[in-house]
This record gives sequence, C-alpha cells and structure tokens, in this order.
Amino acid sequence: MAIYVASRRLSARTTAATLRYATALRSYSTSFREERDTFGPIQVPSDKLWGAQTQRSLQNFEIGGERERMPEPIVRAFGVLKKCAAKVNMEYGLDPTIGKAIMEAAQEVAEGKLNDHFPLVVWQTGSGTQSNMNANEVIANRAAEILGRKRGEKCVHPNDHVNRSQSSNDTFPTVMHIAAATEINSRLIPSLKTLHTTLDSKIFLFSFEFKDIVKIGRTHTQDATPLTLGQEFGGYATQVKYGLNRVTCTLPRLYQAAHDACVETSGSLNTIATSLMKIANDIRFLGSGPRCGLGELVLPENEPGSSIMPGKVNPTQCEALTMVCAQVMGNHVAVTVGGSNGHFELNVFKPVIASALLHSVRLIADASASFEKNCVRGIEANRERISKLLHESLMLVTSLNPKIGYDNAAAVAKKAHKEGSTLKEAALKLGVLTSEEFDTLVVPEKMIGPSD
Amino acid sequence: MAIYVASRRLSARTTAATLRYATALRSYSTSFREERDTFGPIQVPSDKLWGAQTQRSLQNFEIGGERERMPEPIVRAFGVLKKCAAKVNMEYGLDPTIGKAIMEAAQEVAEGKLNDHFPLVVWQTGSGTQSNMNANEVIANRAAEILGRKRGEKCVHPNDHVNRSQSSNDTFPTVMHIAAATEINSRLIPSLKTLHTTLDSKIFLFSFEFKDIVKIGRTHTQDATPLTLGQEFGGYATQVKYGLNRVTCTLPRLYQAAHDACVETSGSLNTIATSLMKIANDIRFLGSGPRCGLGELVLPENEPGSSIMPGKVNPTQCEALTMVCAQVMGNHVAVTVGGSNGHFELNVFKPVIASALLHSVRLIADASASFEKNCVRGIEANRERISKLLHESLMLVTSLNPKIGYDNAAAVAKKAHKEGSTLKEAALKLGVLTSEEFDTLVVPEKMIGPSD
Amino acid sequence: MAIYVASRRLSARTTAATLRYATALRSYSTSFREERDTFGPIQVPSDKLWGAQTQRSLQNFEIGGERERMPEPIVRAFGVLKKCAAKVNMEYGLDPTIGKAIMEAAQEVAEGKLNDHFPLVVWQTGSGTQSNMNANEVIANRAAEILGRKRGEKCVHPNDHVNRSQSSNDTFPTVMHIAAATEINSRLIPSLKTLHTTLDSKIFLFSFEFKDIVKIGRTHTQDATPLTLGQEFGGYATQVKYGLNRVTCTLPRLYQAAHDACVETSGSLNTIATSLMKIANDIRFLGSGPRCGLGELVLPENEPGSSIMPGKVNPTQCEALTMVCAQVMGNHVAVTVGGSNGHFELNVFKPVIASALLHSVRLIADASASFEKNCVRGIEANRERISKLLHESLMLVTSLNPKIGYDNAAAVAKKAHKEGSTLKEAALKLGVLTSEEFDTLVVPEKMIGPSD
Amino acid sequence: MAIYVASRRLSARTTAATLRYATALRSYSTSFREERDTFGPIQVPSDKLWGAQTQRSLQNFEIGGERERMPEPIVRAFGVLKKCAAKVNMEYGLDPTIGKAIMEAAQEVAEGKLNDHFPLVVWQTGSGTQSNMNANEVIANRAAEILGRKRGEKCVHPNDHVNRSQSSNDTFPTVMHIAAATEINSRLIPSLKTLHTTLDSKIFLFSFEFKDIVKIGRTHTQDATPLTLGQEFGGYATQVKYGLNRVTCTLPRLYQAAHDACVETSGSLNTIATSLMKIANDIRFLGSGPRCGLGELVLPENEPGSSIMPGKVNPTQCEALTMVCAQVMGNHVAVTVGGSNGHFELNVFKPVIASALLHSVRLIADASASFEKNCVRGIEANRERISKLLHESLMLVTSLNPKIGYDNAAAVAKKAHKEGSTLKEAALKLGVLTSEEFDTLVVPEKMIGPSD
Repeated sequence: MAIYVASRRLSARTTAATLRYATALRSYSTSFREERDTFGPIQVPSDKLWGAQTQRSLQNFEIGGERERMPEPIVRAFGVLKKCAAKVNMEYGLDPTIGKAIMEAAQEVAEGKLNDHFPLVVWQTGSGTQSNMNANEVIANRAAEILGRKRGEKCVHPNDHVNRSQSSNDTFPTVMHIAAATEINSRLIPSLKTLHTTLDSKIFLFSFEFKDIVKIGRTHTQDATPLTLGQEFGGYATQVKYGLNRVTCTLPRLYQAAHDACVETSGSLNTIATSLMKIANDIRFLGSGPRCGLGELVLPENEPGSSIMPGKVNPTQCEALTMVCAQVMGNHVAVTVGGSNGHFELNVFKPVIASALLHSVRLIADASASFEKNCVRGIEANRERISKLLHESLMLVTSLNPKIGYDNAAAVAKKAHKEGSTLKEAALKLGVLTSEEFDTLVVPEKMIGPSD
Repeated sequence: MAIYVASRRLSARTTAATLRYATALRSYSTSFREERDTFGPIQVPSDKLWGAQTQRSLQNFEIGGERERMPEPIVRAFGVLKKCAAKVNMEYGLDPTIGKAIMEAAQEVAEGKLNDHFPLVVWQTGSGTQSNMNANEVIANRAAEILGRKRGEKCVHPNDHVNRSQSSNDTFPTVMHIAAATEINSRLIPSLKTLHTTLDSKIFLFSFEFKDIVKIGRTHTQDATPLTLGQEFGGYATQVKYGLNRVTCTLPRLYQAAHDACVETSGSLNTIATSLMKIANDIRFLGSGPRCGLGELVLPENEPGSSIMPGKVNPTQCEALTMVCAQVMGNHVAVTVGGSNGHFELNVFKPVIASALLHSVRLIADASASFEKNCVRGIEANRERISKLLHESLMLVTSLNPKIGYDNAAAVAKKAHKEGSTLKEAALKLGVLTSEEFDTLVVPEKMIGPSD
Repeated sequence: MAIYVASRRLSARTTAATLRYATALRSYSTSFREERDTFGPIQVPSDKLWGAQTQRSLQNFEIGGERERMPEPIVRAFGVLKKCAAKVNMEYGLDPTIGKAIMEAAQEVAEGKLNDHFPLVVWQTGSGTQSNMNANEVIANRAAEILGRKRGEKCVHPNDHVNRSQSSNDTFPTVMHIAAATEINSRLIPSLKTLHTTLDSKIFLFSFEFKDIVKIGRTHTQDATPLTLGQEFGGYATQVKYGLNRVTCTLPRLYQAAHDACVETSGSLNTIATSLMKIANDIRFLGSGPRCGLGELVLPENEPGSSIMPGKVNPTQCEALTMVCAQVMGNHVAVTVGGSNGHFELNVFKPVIASALLHSVRLIADASASFEKNCVRGIEANRERISKLLHESLMLVTSLNPKIGYDNAAAVAKKAHKEGSTLKEAALKLGVLTSEEFDTLVVPEKMIGPSD
Repeated sequence: MAIYVASRRLSARTTAATLRYATALRSYSTSFREERDTFGPIQVPSDKLWGAQTQRSLQNFEIGGERERMPEPIVRAFGVLKKCAAKVNMEYGLDPTIGKAIMEAAQEVAEGKLNDHFPLVVWQTGSGTQSNMNANEVIANRAAEILGRKRGEKCVHPNDHVNRSQSSNDTFPTVMHIAAATEINSRLIPSLKTLHTTLDSKIFLFSFEFKDIVKIGRTHTQDATPLTLGQEFGGYATQVKYGLNRVTCTLPRLYQAAHDACVETSGSLNTIATSLMKIANDIRFLGSGPRCGLGELVLPENEPGSSIMPGKVNPTQCEALTMVCAQVMGNHVAVTVGGSNGHFELNVFKPVIASALLHSVRLIADASASFEKNCVRGIEANRERISKLLHESLMLVTSLNPKIGYDNAAAVAKKAHKEGSTLKEAALKLGVLTSEEFDTLVVPEKMIGPSD
C-alpha cells in the first residue's frame, strides 16, 4: 500500500526526475511509513530514521546526486551539538527520560553511526534548516526506539523535544564552526606539521645534507647567483610554517559563530594554496628531465608515468597538489561570494560556505600528507648535475662587481656568453683582472650569504 | 597468503595511512590477486577488475575519499572512446578476437555497468594518465573474462592491446570533451530550456496574465517608474535564453580537444550563474514578507521554513540556486587557474578542469530544473499588493516632466514625500497644473513603454 | 640633434606605437640628453631625472598609459629605502659626500617631490627591477645635481653608488611591504576605526537611540522574530571591528618580506569586503522606498538620484562601497594568481601584487570613509514604519511555542496569514488560548534576548 | 567671495578630507561660480564646464583619487550617444538651435577635447547617473557657450534639453557597450591579430624555419616524444586565433544593452588570459638559461636584467604579459560579482563592470602588442641546443613500442637512465633488437606526426 502511494506520487513527475529519484532510493528501501509535519503526511522509507521535513527536502532538491550530500563532519557536529543542547534543556525543564534518550541518540550521530540517515544535499535551504531538521528527526526517531517506541509516533518530538528553542540560525552556524575547527585541528594542522618537519629535515638530518649543497639560483626563470639547496628548502619549510600560523590565527574567530570567520579561514587556506602551488611547481621544475630538463632533484618514482612512453616517471604528486590548490582558490571565491551575500538577520549561503570550506580543508590536508609521504620524503639531490650547472653559470660574475664595477662585470659576462667561453677566460681577455684575482673573487660558496 | 603479503606491505606505512587505506578497501574485498606493471608486482582486490597502475594510484593518492572519485561522465566517456579506438585499431592490425572483446567490455563501461571498478580520485596525475590506465586495465581484464581467460594474466594487455598507440595526452582531453558535451546536451540544455519555457509562459499563458499586471519598478532598490510583471519576467526569460545561446556557442570549440575551450565553456556557465543569481535574488525579494516585505509575488510553499518560527515559508529554491551560482563562480576560478598553468606539450590540470566543469554543468542543470519545478512554475502575482504599491508611488511624477519640467516635477515629489500626501495633492497645492491635467498625464498604464 | 636622433629611432616603429609614444612624451619635453647603460646610449628627455634603463622600460612597455603608473606609495617607499641603504652603505665604505647627497635626494623621493620622474607602469618586469633602476637613476642624477654636477654624467652611479649591493629581489619586496604597511596604517585602519565608531555610536549616543527601537527581524529575506535596531547595527559594528583585527593580524608577517604575506593581507581585505558588502546591502534594502520598499531607515539625501525621475534619492554611497567590494574581491584573485606563480628564487608577479593590493587598501579606506561620512553618520530610523511592520508581523507567533507547541503555533500563523487577520484573532478562533494568555505571551520587547 | 563660501563649506569637514579635497582641486581653479540643481546652489570651479550634480558627486565620493576617474572611452562614448540623442530629439520637438549646439558640444566630448571636464571617479552611484549628469552638464554649458551664453545660466538645460527623456538606466549601459565594443574593435582585435600573424610567421616565413626544427617535447615538465618547433608555435598561434574568435563571438550580444553580455565578454578575455599565460610561461621556460636552463629559444635582449647581476637578460615581456593575465582574471571576478548582484530593474554595479572590463581590454590589447613587438618578433631558435637535447632524450624509446612491446621498451629506457648510457647501448645489451633494427626504428623526424 505504502509503495502504491509513493508510486502514485512519483507518477506525476517527469520520467527523468523519477529515474533520478528511483536511483536515490535504490539502496534504501522497498517499504514506507507515514510521517507528518505542519504540511501534512508524507511517505518515508521504513528503514530510515528521518522524518517528514527531510523527506520533503529530498524530493524538492534533486541537485547533484549523492556526491553532493552534506559533508560528514557537519553531520557529526550536529550530534555533538544536539547532545549538549539536550543536557542544557534538561536543566530548563526537558523530561529527563526523553533528554537522556536524545543524548544517547545524538552520541550515535556524533560517532558517524547514523550517517546513512542523512541523505540531504548541500544545495537546499540556505540556512541549513533542512539539515537541522534532518538531525532533529533522526535523533527523535532514534531516541524513541531507545525508549522502546516506534518511529514516526513523535513520542519524542523533533521540534519540541530535540530542537527545543533552537533556531537553525543558531544551530547551523554552530555546526559549521564545530566541523571546520575539528577538521582543521584533526586533519589539516597535523598534515601541514608533518610536511613542515619533512621539509625541514631535508636541510639538516639526512646523510646527504642539503645545507651543504651549493647550487645555482634562478630568478625570472634565468640563471642567477648561487644559494644552497638547504636555503631553497628552508624557504619552502618557512612558507609551510607561516601557513600553519595563518590558519591557526583564524581559529579564535572561527570558534565564535559568524560567517566572516569562514571567509577569513578560507582566505588563509587560499594563502596556503599559493605557497603550496609555488613549492610544488619549483620541485617539479627542479626535478624535470631526466635528460632535457633542469634535473637538479631526483623525485621518487611511484608509478609508470605514461601509457605510451615507457620508462617515463612524472611528478604526479606535485600535479595532484597543484590541482588541489586550484580548487581551493576556486572554493575561496565560492565562499567569498556566499559570505558577501548575507541579508538582514541571516546569511542564506551557509551550506555552500560550509561545504566549500570543508572541501578545501580536507583537500589541503590530504594532499599535503600525500605530497609529504610520496614525494618530499624521498627527494634526493642530483649532486653531480647541481655542481655542473653551478660552475658553468655566468652569474658568478656578480662577485666581480665590488672590484671592477657593474659595467665592466657586465662586459665580462656578455663576452663569455657570446663566445661560449668561461667567465675567467673572458675576464682575462678583457684584461680587467688577473687570474689570481679572479680565483680569489669568484668562489660560489662565498656567495650564499653575508660574509662575517 | 595474498592477505598476508598485502598486510606486510601495509605494515610499513604509518598507522593513520593504514587506517585510511583500510577504510578505502573496506567495502571491497578480503582476498587479493597479484597484478604486475613495469614497477613490479602488486596486490589487487580479487573482486575488482582494475590492475597494477590503478592500485598504485589508489595507494599514492589518498586525497579526499570517495566523494572525490573521477566523475561518472568521465568514466562512461572512456568506454565510448576505447570502443571506437578498438574498432579503428582492428583496421590497423589488432587481432579481431581481442578487438571485439575490448569493444564489448568498453560498451559495458560506457553504460556505467563497471562504475565500481573506477576507484581513482580527481586528485591524481594531472594528465589523467592513471584514469586512462584504470580504463585500460578494467577493459583488458573484462575482455579477458569475455574470452574465458583470467584477470591479471594480461592475455589482453592494457597498454599493447587496449591503449595501443594512444597517449593520455590524447585520450583524457577527448573524454573530458565527450563528457562535458554530453552533460551539456543531455542535462544542462534541457533544464535551461524548460526554465525558459516556464518563465516565458508566465507572461502569456496563464489565466492571471502577468503581461497585464502593471507594477511599480524599482531601481537602486528604490521606487521607480512602472512596468508590467510580464516585462519583468520577460527580462528573466531573455537572460535564460541568452544563457542557452552562450553555452551553445562554445560547443563547436568544445567538440575539438583543447583546454581553453573548457575555460571558455566554464566562462559561459559563470555568465549563466550571474543571470540566475539575479533572477533568484529578485524573486525572493519580490516574494519577501508575508507582511513586512515587498510581497508582490506569492511563492509556492514546499516545506515548513523554520525550526522555531511556526508558519514561516522561505524561498528555499532561490537559496539553493544562488548557492549553486556561488559554487559555479568558484569552480570557474579553479578552471581558470588550472587552464592557465599548462606547460609545454601538456596541461597537467586536466582532472580538476574536468571535475570542476562537470560539477558546474551538473549543478546548474539540476538546480535550474529544481527551481523551475518547485518555484517558478507555481509563482503567482499578489495583484492587490502590486496595485496598492503602484498607486502610492511617488515616481509616477516622472510623467509630469514633459509638461512642467524636471525641476518643478521634483518639487512636487519632494512636497508629497515630506507631507505624506499624494502627488496630486502636492501638485495642486504648488499650482503647477490643474486636477484635469494631472489625471490626463499621470496614467501608470501609459508609462510602461513608448506610446505610438 | 638629440631630437633628430630620437625621431629617427621612432621612425622605425609603427605609426600607432609612435602616436602612443608621442602622447606619452607630450607633457614632458622637447629636448633630450644622452644616457648610457650596459646596452649602450639612449635619448632621455632633458627635463627628467631618469636614466637609460628607465627610458628603455618606457619604450618597451607601452601598456595601459598613465593610469597604470606604479602606485605613488611604492615610489615614496623607494625613497625611504634608498635613504636607509645609503646610510648603511656609508658604514661599509660608500664615499660620505656621495652618500649624503644620495640621502638628500632619496628624502625628496620619499616626500613625493619627484613623482613626475617615475613614469614606469605596473606592467613591466615582474621583479620590479625597472622601477628599482628608475629610483636608482633618479636619485643618482638628483644627487649629482645636489653635488653641482650634471645629469647623465654618472658621477653618482645608479648601480655602484645608489643600488650598491642590493638586488631588486631585495628592494622591491621591501618597498612593497613598506608601501602596503604604510597605507594600511595611515589610511585603512583610521577609516575603518571611524566607521566602527560611527556604527557603534548609532546604538548608544544619539537622542533617537537605536538600542531601544524594537523592529521586525528578517531571515531568508522573510519576516522573522524581532530584534532591536541597536542589535542590528551592533552586528555591523562588530563585523567592522573584526575586520580591523583581521588586517592588523596580518601586519607582523607583512613587516617581513615574503609574498605570501601580501596574499594573506589581500585575503583579510577580501574578508572585510564581504562584511562591508553585507552591511551596505542591508542598509540599502532597509532604506528602500520611499513608499514601496521596506523603508525602516532614512538615508541621507546627498544628491538628486535620477536624470529623469524627479525627487528620487538613491543609496549611492552603498553602491559605491559595494562596487569597491567587488573590485577588491577581483583584485584578491589577481594577487592570488600572482602569488601562486612564483618560480625558484623569485616571484615575477611583484608589481601586479603590489598594485592590486595597494588598490584594494586605498579603495576600502576611501570608500569606508566616504560611506561613514556621507551615509552612516546621517542615517535615521523611521520609527513609525518600524513599529507598524513589527506589530503586523506573523512571526510574533514564535512566542507561543513553549505554551501551545510548534504544531499549534504554526496553525495559528497559517490561519492569520490565510484570513488576513491578526495573530490574536486567529488564536482565539482556534481556541488554543485565551485573550489574556495571548497578551501575556506575545510581547515583542521580550523576544529580543534571553529573559533573566 | 566664491572662495570664501567654498572655504566655509569645507571648514565643516575633517582636516584629512579637506586636504584631499584641496589636492583634488589644486590643478583646477582659484575662482568659483554658482550652479544649481534640485538640491539648491553649489560652488563650481569657474574654469570647468561641469555643473551642480557633478560637483556634488566630486565632494561625496572622494575615493581613490585621479587614477580612478571614469575611463576615457566611457567619456567619449557619452559624446557619441548625446550627439545621436540630440539629433533624434530634434525630430521630436527639441528646438533646432539648441539641438545643433548640443550636437556640436557632444562632438567635442566624443573627440576627447573636454576630457578635463569629467572629473568623476568610477566609485560613484552604481547606475552611472552622476557621469550621465556630468555629460549632460558639460554639454549643456558648452552648448550655451557655443550659443554665446554663459555657463550656469541653464539656457541649455542639462536635464530638459540634453538628457531629455533618457534614463541613466538607458544611457549608461549604452555607453558601456559603445566603449567596450570600440576598444575591442580598435585596440584588442588588431593587437591579437598582429600577435597571431607573428606567431604564425615564425612557422613558415623566416629563413630559420621553425617548421623544420625537430625538438624534444615535454609533458608533465618531463622529457617526452619529439615535435617540431613549428608545431609548438602553431599551437600558440591557434590559441590566439581561437581567442580572437571567442571575443568576436560575444560582440553581437555586447552590441545590445545587457550586463550579462559584459560578464560574457569578460569571460572571453579571461579565456584569452589563460591562453596568453600559457604561451608566455612556455616561452620563458624554453628561453631559460643562458646556461642552466632549457635554453632552446633565444629571446630578444631589450634591457639589462638585474641591478646587481651584470649581463643578465630576463624574459620581461613574458612577465608583463603574465601579470596582465593575473589582473584580467581578477577583473573578471570583479565583473562577475558585479554582474550577479543586480536587483530588480537596475544593476547598480555598472561603473565597476565598465571599468574592470575596459581595463582588461586595454591591458590585453597593449600587452599583446608589446609582447609581439618586443619579444615574439625577435625570438630565435637555439638549433644547436635543441638538437643536443633531442638526441639525448630517453623518450625516443617510444618508437620501439610497436616492435618490442611497452614492457620491454620500458626496460630499455630504465636501463639507459640508470647507467647513463644511450638508448641504443641499453637495447643492444638487453638483446631486444639489433643495431640495424634500432636505427631503422628510432628516427625522431618520423615521430612528429602520423606516417602516411
């Protein structure tokens, strides 16, 4: 009978919608029960805990399919919030039997045990009210079960008992901030810390110590004065450390409930993305080759690189990371557009803000971890290549500036470049200094920092 | 035994990674078979068709979890492509027995029957090589089964038989364009066409014809000269029609393989998003109230609007649509950043470009359909409210300009505003025209277009 | 003669380029002197202090015209930097006579006295080297004049004496940060502080105290439970205060030289832009009307609003501010793209990062000041309108929840809405409570915060 | 006296504002005349043609200074529009004497002769009404002078005669579209055409024909199979040609008046920016060196590259172009945000849309021209280096796939890589083919396209 009613409802829809709807229900159910809200009765799959308002949202917002479900950290955060609320509500008169059952049910939500009962997509009401009601309904029905009652009877009422005095305008921002802060603290910060440690350890800890490897610098993508490989990686490590500071800096404001804080935190992720984009770009260019590129770094070989070019190994971790950075920059614009369009007492872009922010947090956290484990950790210096390029470089001529002046030094470099000779040969031919003077002045190892 | 080997491999990893990996495999398998590639042997779940390179990617790119899997339209497009390629390859010497089995297996991929065998995430190598190999491996193993052989034996070789002469540099762009064009033609264009038809039908077809309802216009959010509700909706309909033109315009370049075309198509979606954002914003403001807003439109009531405010009905479809627009604008930036960072003979931001573009196509398609079905179709005009506001408006004074000049007309409006009187009362008090003249000049219905 | 040579050089160019070049020189000069660099001699306008490298850049980068000149704060910061550098260089062996002349000339640059001698546009070399050389050349020639010598003689050498040991890789980032920090401290922070003070004073200081005005709240653009106008403006004030914190938070990292800091600071401006966008949007909608909008606020009338609608007054300050916000969001993307594309030892997007960041700082600073002075300061509450809307609202029904439950309260609101009656009439008809009970429960003034 | 009045007005302002105002007026005037509008009298500099409403805007919107003035193409487009309108208005009753004077004055505006009389900044009312009134006032006063009358007398009235029946809602969109279309047709399209021609000519026309130079390809920044330099530049030429198509495609919709068209056109510029970013990035990496980079291209040396490294030459044109691309991407977001925030009968983000769009058009046009003239035109191939890298590359191994299979070919490449040997040596050692077979199969020149 229930199936008949549901089918009849569906028959009024377009075929396409029916199919989509059918797909959505496929894994769920073949029987239904009746739930009610202020709009009247509606059929709900028997094996699901959600109620009438969740079911309406499911039918009214067929947008994007299962991939677009409200992120799991939001669902879990609802469990945390509703448990706390029930505790406080008992102090303000909520029946303790009901209150305790609510707390128990909410705990199950917090642990992710009831994830399958949260089918709503991000693209729903902009206040997240429908996900709030989804939580209320699931917890109410589950609490009823705990008390030995049936689903749908409303012996535990989703509004009067579970939601009780809360506005979605309170609850959804709260779960956004719980979820974001939790993901940042439990995923992002550990990943970035590990990446920082590994970058830092490249400088000092390994037997091939990067801090002693003097290499050619490059500015404007052109040859420039030398630095050590340790200095280069030290720059990367500092960028990551600052990124950690940046996102940590935003947490105090994120712990309070206000949407600008999400825009701000997203901004810190955007900044981290620019840092990681630069680091990953550098590493792939420095590791380019094996024979026709810069070839100064040897990146770990994790997989065959090409479907047709045998033996090719590609900097795929750099690629995944830079793609993540592109998406994070895009998500930041989504968060910004959403954050800027609040009106009056409510910003109705909450779900997209939450979804895009959590997406960015997760992507940077996971991609940093993957990049650390599968790339940075195994990077080695190609010492031979580094040394060869260093000693061929014309930019060592910079050491001559204090002695012979910028104009003369330029003439030396230009002559060497034109004639394909060494700097020393050019300098001697031009007669601007002696062989001994040249050897004393041009020492790459002295060019990597101020002399004491 | 297989499990033992897999476990031993895993034991070298960090606990966290192991846990993530275990979670990823949870629903898959408890036994493994050995597959090989140029890197050597690797354990693959027995019940899956993929091979060694897919397995490596799965382990090397633990980024974002299942939500981040390569979009289904890409997977299906690989089926289409590989089937065609096998057909051509048979003309160029591929063994017909193998070729036909490949075609059959590829057809299954095209129909979505083997979706579960495509576990790789978007965040992998930037060329999509790993998803290409995923397709090659699944089709090779499935074709082997069709020929009565075993998985992993390579009697059908993923590179030499299925991939055969293709570069990922060819195949991935091709599937990106197949997938995008298919989604645009089968989802987006029909959704936008339906939305256009419904907006258009509001003007002419209904018993309450919007084209005859004269209402106050608003510029700068302030009262302005009148127009008809039909003109207002006509504007929306035109924006949607132009949007259709815009995205259609980009198809010829999308049918060829080049990433700029994806950026261009994403740009047309971005433009459509700005149009839809405007339309949805207007409709929610015109429908604001019920008593303290503009209240000119009555929007369909689809669900209870608030967890604490009983009787509240919110413009939730507008909210979902505008959130989608924000995400589409963000995705456009991701596509732009990805599209701009190509280097040399390959852009390695392909998967993020494909994913973000397809995400936008799907979101706009579904959200337009939902908005049409659950909002626009049921919008009604609040004729009483519209008429009341129209006749109270001071901006009807504009009709007096040609007769008494801008400066005098301004004086009339200011006097009426200051004294809370009607325009006519103010005009008569100032003695700038007679009662009859006023009545002849100030006729809202004449202000909605050029008089002939 | 000089003119002849310059003309001959120009004759080789395309006509269009010549015209653009001529336009660029129009206001400058009719005679030329010869300057030299390592590329050889070049003609420079006699009345300008710049030298050969500046002149080459001027001819090589005809992009955008005078509007695109390097921002003045950058030019002044070069003065500050070069003065300090000369002082330090004297300690390291720079001839004190030359050093003092350099300091004097640099001081003139810092004071903006030599702005006309900095003609280069933002769109030049990505390291800002050309603007660094512009500073070196102008200061060298001006110092020479101070010492009684001629321009172009290089008795004070732009590289060896003024630049002396500095790389553009050092100097340009330094001036970017000096300029940004100076503009933020001297313009942006004072403007935001004034805006905050004025918003805050709306709540407490005025005779019409916003804190006592109870008004209807609006969520989803729909009527909701009440709050005070003071609470509404308190929200705005808090957003601005947090914005101040946000930008201040980034200063420590901006004081060091690294480009990520610019991305981060731009991110804080982006966040501030979302806050200001929301505030300005709210104020214009709350001030919409005069007769067909919400009309709760009366905005200052600063100018006639329409070229054809006499008496129209528009929220133009809100419009300017929201346009500025849109540009700031756009500039943030430009900064992000620039910041993410650094390669190796040098990011070559420095000028666009500096220009876009300074543009945003200036725009927000000025627009906040304008908005404060010409809009917020003069905003008044339309008490009569606010009170009328408040008492008509159906959302006061929320007060009934604890007494009669959510479902009954919803029935009351729906009945009142349907019948156009008051809530009280509907409640009594439904018999859910008595007249006395209703009057005790429904008191808007009690709904604006927790009761003690 | 006038000065006294103006001073008194100013004394009420804050000191900072006064200073800014004084600066703004500095170059203008020391005497004032009185102008009037519906708000009353106001002092205007005597030597300026603008009237009361322009003056109010100047005082109310002190945002950003002179750099932020409404772009010149908008001012000129007002001249074009107002001349046409006067002509039509004469047919509908405008006094021909006045009409002809208006046409003459408007022509002067169209020719840019009265630019100094358009002082308003972009950041004004979002409808552009104030710039419309600026045009009306300047043309009215100038027409009065032409008729031998005085400024400010309103014998030609800015509203009743010049504006006459137009709304800013009509005029400003019209001038936006006139200006954008004019700039695109007169600046952008010619610049892109020239760039396309030069890129194309690199392939065929020069004595060093790029089409015959076989070089190593690079994918994932790693060595890959060969192609010709002509093919590489052919790709660039095609991207530019498609860019031309893209922007041309949007013109029909831009010729009509609607803001979405601006978003769309900006989207086409955004796509062009991604293409140009890729081209400029490639060229600078291919030209990197001189000794420690890829070094396959020799870029023109236009200026000294470094303040401290003598002899350094940098790819500065690439840098300027890529910076322009970053700004264009940012402007596109500004246009998108502006375009998406229209409300009801008017989008009040017109000036920022116009300004950002015109900025992008101008920047791409000029930067393309500069890049073409100062970089692409002079690019030469470093044949020796190209040949050396080509023959060292391991990726020639791909030719062996059809003969010995992917797995064997991979073994050859890996052996050569590990041992630092040639491919041939490794192949012979592994015994997978003979010396003759190798020489027949591995011919780079055959790998650049399908063999017939």
